[in-house]
Amino acid sequence: MIIVLKPNITKKEEAAVLKEIEKLGYKPHVMRGVERIVIGAIGDERTHRNLETLMTWPQVENVMPVQKRYKLVSREAHPPNTAINVRGNVIGGRKVQIMAGPCSVEGEKQLLKTAEAVAAAGATILRGGAFKPRTSPYEFQGLGEKGLKMLDKARRETGLAIITELLSEAHAELVAEYADILQIGTRNAQNFQLLITAARTGKPILLKRGLSMKIEEWLLAGEYVLSNDNCNLMFCERGIRTFERATRHTLDLNAVALVRERTHLPLIVDPSHAAGVRSLVLPLSLGSLAAGACGLIVEVHPDPAHAMSDGAQSLDFAMFEELARQVRGGVGAKA
Amino acid sequence: MIIVLKPNITKKEEAAVLKEIEKLGYKPHVMRGVERIVIGAIGDERTHRNLETLMTWPQVENVMPVQKRYKLVSREAHPPNTAINVRGNVIGGRKVQIMAGPCSVEGEKQLLKTAEAVAAAGATILRGGAFKPRTSPYEFQGLGEKGLKMLDKARRETGLAIITELLSEAHAELVAEYADILQIGTRNAQNFQLLITAARTGKPILLKRGLSMKIEEWLLAGEYVLSNDNCNLMFCERGIRTFERATRHTLDLNAVALVRERTHLPLIVDPSHAAGVRSLVLPLSLGSLAAGACGLIVEVHPDPAHAMSDGAQSLDFAMFEELARQVRGGVGAKA
Amino acid sequence: MIIVLKPNITKKEEAAVLKEIEKLGYKPHVMRGVERIVIGAIGDERTHRNLETLMTWPQVENVMPVQKRYKLVSREAHPPNTAINVRGNVIGGRKVQIMAGPCSVEGEKQLLKTAEAVAAAGATILRGGAFKPRTSPYEFQGLGEKGLKMLDKARRETGLAIITELLSEAHAELVAEYADILQIGTRNAQNFQLLITAARTGKPILLKRGLSMKIEEWLLAGEYVLSNDNCNLMFCERGIRTFERATRHTLDLNAVALVRERTHLPLIVDPSHAAGVRSLVLPLSLGSLAAGACGLIVEVHPDPAHAMSDGAQSLDFAMFEELARQVRGGVGAKA
Amino acid sequence: MIIVLKPNITKKEEAAVLKEIEKLGYKPHVMRGVERIVIGAIGDERTHRNLETLMTWPQVENVMPVQKRYKLVSREAHPPNTAINVRGNVIGGRKVQIMAGPCSVEGEKQLLKTAEAVAAAGATILRGGAFKPRTSPYEFQGLGEKGLKMLDKARRETGLAIITELLSEAHAELVAEYADILQIGTRNAQNFQLLITAARTGKPILLKRGLSMKIEEWLLAGEYVLSNDNCNLMFCERGIRTFERATRHTLDLNAVALVRERTHLPLIVDPSHAAGVRSLVLPLSLGSLAAGACGLIVEVHPDPAHAMSDGAQSLDFAMFEELARQVRGGVGAKA
Repeated sequence: MIIVLKPNITKKEEAAVLKEIEKLGYKPHVMRGVERIVIGAIGDERTHRNLETLMTWPQVENVMPVQKRYKLVSREAHPPNTAINVRGNVIGGRKVQIMAGPCSVEGEKQLLKTAEAVAAAGATILRGGAFKPRTSPYEFQGLGEKGLKMLDKARRETGLAIITELLSEAHAELVAEYADILQIGTRNAQNFQLLITAARTGKPILLKRGLSMKIEEWLLAGEYVLSNDNCNLMFCERGIRTFERATRHTLDLNAVALVRERTHLPLIVDPSHAAGVRSLVLPLSLGSLAAGACGLIVEVHPDPAHAMSDGAQSLDFAMFEELARQVRGGVGAKA
Repeated sequence: MIIVLKPNITKKEEAAVLKEIEKLGYKPHVMRGVERIVIGAIGDERTHRNLETLMTWPQVENVMPVQKRYKLVSREAHPPNTAINVRGNVIGGRKVQIMAGPCSVEGEKQLLKTAEAVAAAGATILRGGAFKPRTSPYEFQGLGEKGLKMLDKARRETGLAIITELLSEAHAELVAEYADILQIGTRNAQNFQLLITAARTGKPILLKRGLSMKIEEWLLAGEYVLSNDNCNLMFCERGIRTFERATRHTLDLNAVALVRERTHLPLIVDPSHAAGVRSLVLPLSLGSLAAGACGLIVEVHPDPAHAMSDGAQSLDFAMFEELARQVRGGVGAKA
Repeated sequence: MIIVLKPNITKKEEAAVLKEIEKLGYKPHVMRGVERIVIGAIGDERTHRNLETLMTWPQVENVMPVQKRYKLVSREAHPPNTAINVRGNVIGGRKVQIMAGPCSVEGEKQLLKTAEAVAAAGATILRGGAFKPRTSPYEFQGLGEKGLKMLDKARRETGLAIITELLSEAHAELVAEYADILQIGTRNAQNFQLLITAARTGKPILLKRGLSMKIEEWLLAGEYVLSNDNCNLMFCERGIRTFERATRHTLDLNAVALVRERTHLPLIVDPSHAAGVRSLVLPLSLGSLAAGACGLIVEVHPDPAHAMSDGAQSLDFAMFEELARQVRGGVGAKA
Repeated sequence: MIIVLKPNITKKEEAAVLKEIEKLGYKPHVMRGVERIVIGAIGDERTHRNLETLMTWPQVENVMPVQKRYKLVSREAHPPNTAINVRGNVIGGRKVQIMAGPCSVEGEKQLLKTAEAVAAAGATILRGGAFKPRTSPYEFQGLGEKGLKMLDKARRETGLAIITELLSEAHAELVAEYADILQIGTRNAQNFQLLITAARTGKPILLKRGLSMKIEEWLLAGEYVLSNDNCNLMFCERGIRTFERATRHTLDLNAVALVRERTHLPLIVDPSHAAGVRSLVLPLSLGSLAAGACGLIVEVHPDPAHAMSDGAQSLDFAMFEELARQVRGGVGAKA
């Protein structure tokens, strides 16, 4: 930690800060500048008490951390890329993995038809929400366990692995029984009790970025998973909330590149939620993969015009086939 | 709903849209403009299927809702202000209510001392976190049930009512046993399962605004509480996340005024989290009350320089007394 | 400046950094931490070359400034409040000053009628745009010099001082001839050539905050005015751009309080642009003054329903009288 | 325009709105809904008076535009892509164009060396700022005309075309004399007088997106150029301002895809400013091109560690060669 003192403080005020730093287990190191005194506090910031309380001291102007706050997810801790094996599909390896399927599981026919179509086009993992978090209580909330059973059937018929959202600690056991990957949604990205519960199921986890989550917070949320003994974590950039109104969210391409640089874990992009409109899904997909994403999670519906949720951003089968074709032909994940 | 068609579409494409609108239970009404055809779909948007799926139709340029999506929280539904009685203290009435106390319950002595000080200065409700949601898994997570028992003791000794955070469905029964008001925190503001569970305890609920929650989404999250048969809901503006880095968050004064205009429910402001630095807590408090807030929730600590969380934004006792004095002397809540 | 080196670098890499720091005129001061080496560079950051280029060095992890970048506008440089005298009206003194008038000068009758009404209600300064910056080239661009002459006439008839926008270096001489205060608009807040030109006219300047301007950047833009020998500067918070869509902009109440703390210059609030809707103008005004603003700038129109710009946020005469009455009766600027 | 009336208004209040709509030259069309009356106003919104003033009417709840506000830049107006020829280099054609060079022209040697290096690697246009807009008045402001002469010399020696920033109306003639493309910077993106002045020089213009400019506003700023008889306009996405602090700005990949969809004009990406750190420049470049950008503008410096501005985000020659190599080998602009 670096502690900057205010200009013109007394010797006694300075001494009090030094004493406090020592009391908290750090070794203080004083630098007398032109206008201000700056103190370096030597010690591991992650194992000692936080010095940020010094901010409240009247003689202190600023306190700045020197170390990164996350450990287990960081590339410093684990330099090579981590790959996750889900039913034989390697996420984070050389092959781009495509997860695809409807926003909501609406019925068996809708789901099976979609599963067959996306499998035929090259997807390896089927997405589909059985429990749906909806902004309004008056909107369709998902089929629940019935939806999970349909996902299971689709898996048996197509060989696709299953990713579905977990949105309540109370459902963890149930959802983990059916899912190959647990998705933690945007609105629960800092629901830490849910993250801990999900981690403890032992299932691979895909952690969507919160609507206005800083990358550091996102990595720290991931730290909740790894520090609960689950290393099978993927991050998923799905667009952040900005002032822009022409698109639903803003796909943060910097985050794609930066998460690959800072962590060893796979990074998936959800172009459907980022765009909110289907015509942008293809260019966002190609751009994300070229920038380093390991995979995509895409909304596909047999009849987007009649989808019960997210129809505007869902691809129909033909559009998905074209996307899969261009992804295969083209850009690969960066190692 | 208003449906705007693209320029130069065929009669057949137009007819298909009209048919779909009728199928979903609305009555279509066509207006032929200079460049575009616009269709009004007549029907209650809150009880019929959403027409936004029409956005996916190639001949459709835009779909715009006409009605507000929230009902029970709206002032249209209930024109007079709603007041909530918590152990004899009326929130949303003529008197400004001040909730005050430490960020975290750290120990019995710290809590009792604070409770006595804030009660003496005029606070009527004691805040204090027993379960703490922390950005990093390596930070202090709260004392849990031990902390709840300390809050209970402080209530018995001072007569203050208790507000404390609920952050897990699994704790709902336990926390409701001790608390007079359940606080739903910023990071759980769209954790709908938690909102439903909290509502069903029957306890009054204070719903903090999410970090980047639109006012409409906030009101809809409140709708989850009221539609689960709990009318004792307060909204709490606590600063939103913006690009500004000089303060921790940005206190959205517009939201204070707008929520008072749009809903009948009380609006509380948390100036401590909004500012992130204690020197701004007083001006933000006075400003918020002058703009229409019914009360404040303020972080107070006997020794902010040694607080286990949020020290930088906590007031000491003298600062809190000054704040309470200025609030009493001055600005009142707007009716 | 604090320079944080990466873990595990060589002695030679460290020595190169130290040499560079000395070359740029600073004295390096080395602290060896648990994982990283941290170097304090002692010297005045505002008069020496910037050390941020060290960020590009492979062995450097981070570079953090210690000093504030602004000088002349800071309260450290000038502890007491600065007040500005405009035709006998003191801005930044004990009395709240209200600037009011139409968004655009639309004609003589509209302007004079408004001027008389706002003067009668207690305003001391008349606002009105003669040159209008409009988002679209197809919108009304203002009456230009004809509008300035009307403002002059209104001043002669009512005794009100005049504030009007300067949006082009080419107009500086002309606008300064008519105006008592030059307004620099939101979209030109970092048009530094315009700021320099405006400063050199010697007229008092009101500097609106840019749509997404950090407070530090705003103060630095003010520094352009003071360092060009013009001390008569006011800052004007007018709402920032955020994700919220229910209001036009977001009034940043923190900025009101913080600018008062950090600078000696007066802070004015524009509740009309912050809200974008007239019903919120009164509560935002009262809240802003209670939080420390020295004055208001409010849009008023004889017939908002037919205004050529910003009608939705303009008050009619009756609403403005009520606002002026409540401001007088109530909350004063904080010293 | 669609005008939504409030619930429960009188016949007389409705009639007044209808009369006003007719007075402004539109034909009203009434739809009686379940709770509200909705009126369609038929007429060209771009040539008639704006109906948004109706928002101020007490009986009106909402006014919604139906048409897009921009014309000349829109793909509806001009379906095929527009390409711009700059000294024989076609921007917006099949070949990706790379503009590269230092942030600031610092001296002849620095510039010539860079020009030669980027030309050798495949760049066709040399960037370099002679007039620099700097956040603080105490930072290096550029070499002015001396810098322009150096750019001219570099053009003669390498054959590269020149792009440089215009930041003052007063410099327009001078800068246009030397530059092949005039760059309008982020902070001047809504400096409409500068846009008009730049357009009238007849030179091709590269319009950077403002820090928090909505895409619609950006296109409307472009409309200022085209409506002043200059069709040689490029848009440049350079990152927007968001809450994220780990990177300097946020590259809005949606904007890249959307601007290509909505307009016929070329879209260039500036990965250097978007990232703020050189290690991300390569992945952002590849991602942007894969998503549809026609070209890049990249900061390159012979010795980034000693650059006078933007060193942290500048590539050295080796990094630039690698970028150019990967761009050539790989992803092309989408037609």
